[in-house]
Amino acid sequence: MRQIFICEVGPRDGLQNAHHLMPTGAKQAWIASMAAAGIEEIEVGSFVPPKLIPAMADTAEIVAFALTLPALKVVALAPNMKGFERAVASGAHKVTFPVSASRAHSLANVRMTPEQMVDEVRKCVRLRAKGGPEIEAGVSTAFGCTMQGEVPEDDVVRLAVMLVEAGVDCVALADTVGYANPAQIRRLFRKVKKEIGEKLEAAHLHNTRGLGLANALAAYEEGVRHFDSSMGGLGGCPFAPGASGNVITEDLVFMFESMGVPTGIDLDKLMEARKLMVAAIPGEPVYGHMALAGVPKGFRAAA
Amino acid sequence: MRQIFICEVGPRDGLQNAHHLMPTGAKQAWIASMAAAGIEEIEVGSFVPPKLIPAMADTAEIVAFALTLPALKVVALAPNMKGFERAVASGAHKVTFPVSASRAHSLANVRMTPEQMVDEVRKCVRLRAKGGPEIEAGVSTAFGCTMQGEVPEDDVVRLAVMLVEAGVDCVALADTVGYANPAQIRRLFRKVKKEIGEKLEAAHLHNTRGLGLANALAAYEEGVRHFDSSMGGLGGCPFAPGASGNVITEDLVFMFESMGVPTGIDLDKLMEARKLMVAAIPGEPVYGHMALAGVPKGFRAAA
Repeated sequence: MRQIFICEVGPRDGLQNAHHLMPTGAKQAWIASMAAAGIEEIEVGSFVPPKLIPAMADTAEIVAFALTLPALKVVALAPNMKGFERAVASGAHKVTFPVSASRAHSLANVRMTPEQMVDEVRKCVRLRAKGGPEIEAGVSTAFGCTMQGEVPEDDVVRLAVMLVEAGVDCVALADTVGYANPAQIRRLFRKVKKEIGEKLEAAHLHNTRGLGLANALAAYEEGVRHFDSSMGGLGGCPFAPGASGNVITEDLVFMFESMGVPTGIDLDKLMEARKLMVAAIPGEPVYGHMALAGVPKGFRAAA
Repeated sequence: MRQIFICEVGPRDGLQNAHHLMPTGAKQAWIASMAAAGIEEIEVGSFVPPKLIPAMADTAEIVAFALTLPALKVVALAPNMKGFERAVASGAHKVTFPVSASRAHSLANVRMTPEQMVDEVRKCVRLRAKGGPEIEAGVSTAFGCTMQGEVPEDDVVRLAVMLVEAGVDCVALADTVGYANPAQIRRLFRKVKKEIGEKLEAAHLHNTRGLGLANALAAYEEGVRHFDSSMGGLGGCPFAPGASGNVITEDLVFMFESMGVPTGIDLDKLMEARKLMVAAIPGEPVYGHMALAGVPKGFRAAA
């Protein structure tokens, strides 16, 4: 029945960029409430050095908790093999690697060139034992980079092909800094899909310039059914103070449900989960229109 | 060269719903700065009884000023024949009538049923002398109504046909309360276009639930090239405190320009005009992502 598959990345992408730390217990309650609202996949944390990102220090504990929730696919980010080993040890169902198409961003983010990062991912794929986690590669800065500016589309296509050859199960295209526009989304998803077919799975979009939902719509019309998003657009954008972060889960769910496309997510319960989040990090800026305006009179969720 | 035609409605739809009055001189400077940025059509005010809407009391003076700006199409709203007569006397190039598809909204807004309002518009069309203003009918609440809830699509189609038969030059479909979704936008624009063809011109969208740009994209893909929007999403939504009003001009222009679709509008100059607006009504909530995030590194406007 569910036609749209949303991976909530707030506990990872959101909290990683937030100004406030969310206590472990509150993270667990929040994740449980989102799972209860029908979100079937949550990126719960990141296996990065705790010194670098203190907000992610409790990721193993969070994964362990999330694995107790029924029917939830538990995702963790790993920036390298060390992180992957920790993710495997944690029992996460899926591990996602950030692989930047921008050389400058890749070096800044993971201290490897894109090609070195593909090698790292390949080693992890080979290391994976039978029954090991699903492996996703998210092509970061696929639509532009705050350091490099324009990212050639051919670089993105080539990187996606290399990642599939390296053995990843699926590839996402990420508009890491909110540069994408709907025409570019259509063009690049089409180009990459032509090369790697069904291995191209998710769109990871940011709302920095307000185009998050328009870009999601464009991706949907190109056949994309998996979307990353974050509750309340949590985390904002480090490059644009006041601007929201990831595309906002509540608004994305509303858009699809109002279009008659079922997400499997209950909007009322999602709003309850949002309240838990807001209470757990008071003072943190959160975004979103649904929370202000509510659903239209006579609104019916998609069947 | 311009492929998108934006009618800025901030001085009318925005200021009409704003909490603060903008002084006449500031309105004039703001309108002049928007025209200088390349906006070719501005709805500068409304010929309604000043007692009802004090913010629109200076509309005749504003029209007179706007007519002095080169190459600007000056639009005024009229809710009835009395307003139309004042609009004609003012010399406005175009008069737009709000014609609600929702009976409840029509009675509340103009104290006439939709059918009575069509009669009123027909009388104005007949009254119009040679060389008189262009006449537009905006079908309000075309996508739903806060009072009535759902508005049957057949009601909207029938109303559009009646308005064309009444002799209007063009019809707009208005999502007055921000209920529309992209699928509905596509469906209804297609249905109405099938009946009235090129007479269907503009999309008047609100951003109450954050879908403003996604809806604009859907309308664009259905062939719509004329869009109403308001700078800063000015005016908000009386039914959803904190939610933005019309779709935001700056963000809409950015979306199309980034897609390579020229609007004829200079984004830098548009931002200067925004500063004038903000300074003229300090404390008034304004919205928009472009003003926070700026354009992407290496951004090029459409040729």
